[in-house]
Amino acid sequence: MSQPLIRITTRAHFSAAHRLHCPDRDDEWNRRIFDKCNNPHGHGHTYQVEITVEGPVQEETGWVVDFKDLKRIVSEKVIKPCDCKNLNTDVPFLSGVNPTAENLAVKFWEQLESGVSPARLVRLVLHETDRNKVIYTGGGAD
Amino acid sequence: MSQPLIRITTRAHFSAAHRLHCPDRDDEWNRRIFDKCNNPHGHGHTYQVEITVEGPVQEETGWVVDFKDLKRIVSEKVIKPCDCKNLNTDVPFLSGVNPTAENLAVKFWEQLESGVSPARLVRLVLHETDRNKVIYTGGGAD
Amino acid sequence: MSQPLIRITTRAHFSAAHRLHCPDRDDEWNRRIFDKCNNPHGHGHTYQVEITVEGPVQEETGWVVDFKDLKRIVSEKVIKPCDCKNLNTDVPFLSGVNPTAENLAVKFWEQLESGVSPARLVRLVLHETDRNKVIYTGGGAD
Amino acid sequence: MSQPLIRITTRAHFSAAHRLHCPDRDDEWNRRIFDKCNNPHGHGHTYQVEITVEGPVQEETGWVVDFKDLKRIVSEKVIKPCDCKNLNTDVPFLSGVNPTAENLAVKFWEQLESGVSPARLVRLVLHETDRNKVIYTGGGAD
Amino acid sequence: MSQPLIRITTRAHFSAAHRLHCPDRDDEWNRRIFDKCNNPHGHGHTYQVEITVEGPVQEETGWVVDFKDLKRIVSEKVIKPCDCKNLNTDVPFLSGVNPTAENLAVKFWEQLESGVSPARLVRLVLHETDRNKVIYTGGGAD
Amino acid sequence: MSQPLIRITTRAHFSAAHRLHCPDRDDEWNRRIFDKCNNPHGHGHTYQVEITVEGPVQEETGWVVDFKDLKRIVSEKVIKPCDCKNLNTDVPFLSGVNPTAENLAVKFWEQLESGVSPARLVRLVLHETDRNKVIYTGGGAD
Repeated sequence: MSQPLIRITTRAHFSAAHRLHCPDRDDEWNRRIFDKCNNPHGHGHTYQVEITVEGPVQEETGWVVDFKDLKRIVSEKVIKPCDCKNLNTDVPFLSGVNPTAENLAVKFWEQLESGVSPARLVRLVLHETDRNKVIYTGGGAD
Repeated sequence: MSQPLIRITTRAHFSAAHRLHCPDRDDEWNRRIFDKCNNPHGHGHTYQVEITVEGPVQEETGWVVDFKDLKRIVSEKVIKPCDCKNLNTDVPFLSGVNPTAENLAVKFWEQLESGVSPARLVRLVLHETDRNKVIYTGGGAD
Repeated sequence: MSQPLIRITTRAHFSAAHRLHCPDRDDEWNRRIFDKCNNPHGHGHTYQVEITVEGPVQEETGWVVDFKDLKRIVSEKVIKPCDCKNLNTDVPFLSGVNPTAENLAVKFWEQLESGVSPARLVRLVLHETDRNKVIYTGGGAD
Repeated sequence: MSQPLIRITTRAHFSAAHRLHCPDRDDEWNRRIFDKCNNPHGHGHTYQVEITVEGPVQEETGWVVDFKDLKRIVSEKVIKPCDCKNLNTDVPFLSGVNPTAENLAVKFWEQLESGVSPARLVRLVLHETDRNKVIYTGGGAD
Repeated sequence: MSQPLIRITTRAHFSAAHRLHCPDRDDEWNRRIFDKCNNPHGHGHTYQVEITVEGPVQEETGWVVDFKDLKRIVSEKVIKPCDCKNLNTDVPFLSGVNPTAENLAVKFWEQLESGVSPARLVRLVLHETDRNKVIYTGGGAD
Repeated sequence: MSQPLIRITTRAHFSAAHRLHCPDRDDEWNRRIFDKCNNPHGHGHTYQVEITVEGPVQEETGWVVDFKDLKRIVSEKVIKPCDCKNLNTDVPFLSGVNPTAENLAVKFWEQLESGVSPARLVRLVLHETDRNKVIYTGGGAD
C-alpha cells in the first residue's frame, strides 16, 4: 500500500525595512499608487513566513522530513539574509525587486524550492501584519 | 513569461447578535435542533471574517490588488452593515436568512464577489469563536 | 520557610448578546452616548474571561488550587449563566445592569469571589474583541 | 438549485507525552535520527487538533452539521483517549505506532473518518507547537 | 459607596523602520553594541501598542471612558505619526531619540498621558515581535 | 533626572513530559488528587515561558538589557535543560520536585534570578496550555 501523503508547515519571522517604489515610473505615480508605503525613508514589518512541504511519510522515521532540516533551510535561505535588513538595498537575491509582499513571496519560493527535496514545496505564506498576508503556491497566471 | 498567481488575505471583525431559528418549523423543533442557540432573546459573537482573492501580480505595482482597496470593500460590504447589529433583524441583505455561520458566509460571499475585480474571490472564512469557523469557496454541492 | 505565593490564571469564553442603554436617561441621550452600541435589537460578542487567583503553593500537591476546580467554578458561575444568552434580559445576576464590559467584570467578580477560597481572587479580565479588554482587581475609587 | 458546499472546522487540544523511536532499528540509529526526540524518558506536547468536514448546507438547519456533534466526535475519538496519556504506551489505537505528528495525524483521521457522516472529513491539522504543524487530507503517495 | 476602579486596554499596530544607533559613540562601538540592529539601512517591525487607562466606572454610562475615544487618541498621537514611517527621521516627537523599544515606549507615554483624562494612563506595552515586548508604567529609577 | 524604569519581557517554549505525583503519599491518594495527571506513563506539554526583568534605561544604549542576552540566559538555564526531556527524571535542578506548573515556575525563577543582573527578575509566567498559566513574582506567603 502507498504511504500517506502529508504536508508539514513551519513558521519563522524576521524584522526588515522596505519601501514600495517602481523605478520605471516617476515619483508622482509612485506617491499616488503606493501612498504611505512610498515614504522615501521606508517603513518596516515583523514578517512571519510559513512554508509547507508535501511528501510521503517515510516508513522508518514516520516523518516526511525532519522539522529541524526544514527550519534550517528557512533560516539559511530566508531569515538570515533578511533579518534586520533593508529589503530594498541589503539582500542580494532581492536586488532590483520592488519588495511588495507578493514579490517577496515569489523570491522566497525561489530560494527555498530546491532545498526541501525529497519533499516538495507546495505553499508559502508571508504575513506583513496579523491581519494581512499573501499566499503563493508556485503557479503562474495563464 | 506569465506573472505569478498570488492569493492575498485580509481579516476584519464585527460584533453582532443573532438567533438561530427556522420559521418553517414549529418552536419545539427549533428548540430541539438549535438548543441554546434558539434562545428567544438571542446571543452574539465577535465575528472574524477573512477574505482571500487571487490574481496575477501586476508588473508595475508588484501587487495583485492594493490591500487598502480590499479592506475598504470588506468594510463597506460586510463590516459596516453588520457591526453592532442584530443579524436577524437589522441587515437588509440578510433579510429572511437564518443566520448560521454557513448562511452568513454564503451571503457575505455574494456581497463581496463583484467588488474585488480584477482579482477573483476564492475563499471566505468566518470565525464565530477562536475554535470554530466555516469556510466557503463559492461552490455548490452536486 | 514560607511557601511561594503564586498566581494561576484560567481562560474561558461565552457568546452573548447585549445592548448598552441607561434607563435613567432618555433615548436621545442613549443614542448620542452609546451610538451603535445602543442599537435597539442589540449586538453581541464572543467574550473571553480570564480569572487569576493567588495563594501559597500547597506542600503536598504542589498546587495553589486544582485548575479543574477553578475551571468548574468559572463554568458554573459565569459561563453557563451567560453563554448563548442576552445579557440585558436573561441572566438573573445581571438584572437591571447596563451590560458594559466594566459592569460585567464587576458582576462576574461578585459571582466568583467566594468560590475560589482558600485562594484569593486577584484579577479578572474580560475581552470583548481581541483588541479591547477591561481589567478589574476588586478595588474601588477613593 | 444546489445547496452551497461549506467546510466547517473545529479545534481542540490534548496534553500528552511521546518518544520517537523505530523498533526495527538499533539504538544508535534511533539516537542519530531522532536526536533529542529519542530521549528514553520521553517528552511531550500540548497538541492542537483541527478537523475540517465538508458538506452541503442543510436547508432547514442552515448547517452542514451541528458544531456540537463535531466537537463531541473529536472529544470521544481523539481527545479523551489521548489527553494526559503517553502516546507510546497508553492509547490502544496507537499501539505499535511511532508517534510522530505525521503518524498521529493519519491515525486520528482513521478514528474520525466514519463518525462525521453525512459530512465528509477533508482535512486534519495537528500542531505540536505554535510554529510546527502537519496537515493530512486523507490521500496517499502514488 | 465608591465606584469600582477599572482598567481598560486597547491595542493598535503600526509598521515602521528603525535603526539603533547612539550618535555620541563611534561607529565601531555602535556596531559592537547594536550588532544587526545597527545596520546602516535600517530594519523594521510591525509594532503592537497596548495602552491601559484606569478610572472609576461612571454611573450613567457604566464606562470608565468610551473605547472609541481611547482608540482615537492612540490613533492620532501614535499610530498616524508613526505608521509607514522611519522612526529615526520622520517623526517629530522622536527627533534625536535612539528608537529602541524602551525609548519609544517612554515617548509614546508622553504623547498619550495628557489625552486620556479623566482616566489615568497606567501602562503602555510595546511589542516588537510576538516574543519580545517592553512595558512602561510611567515611573523612574530611584 | 532619573532614567525611566522599564520592564522587558521575552517568551520561549520547550516541549517536555511530566507526571504529577507526591512520593510522600500513597498511590490511592495520588490517583484521587492528581487524577489523569497522575497517569504512570506521564503526559506532556508544549510549555511557554515568559520572563520579565526590570531596570532603568541605560543612557547610551537606550536599553534596559540587550534582548539577545535575555534570550540567551533563558535558553541556557531553562530551555536547553528542559526541552525534549522528562521533567520527573531528566533535569538535575528539578530532582525530587513534583513538576506542577507552580513548582516549575519557582525552580525556573531560581535558575534565572542571578543571571539577569543588573536588571532585576520581576515576573515569570509559565503556560501549560493556551488557557492555563501560572505567574510567579518571587514572593512568599506570610
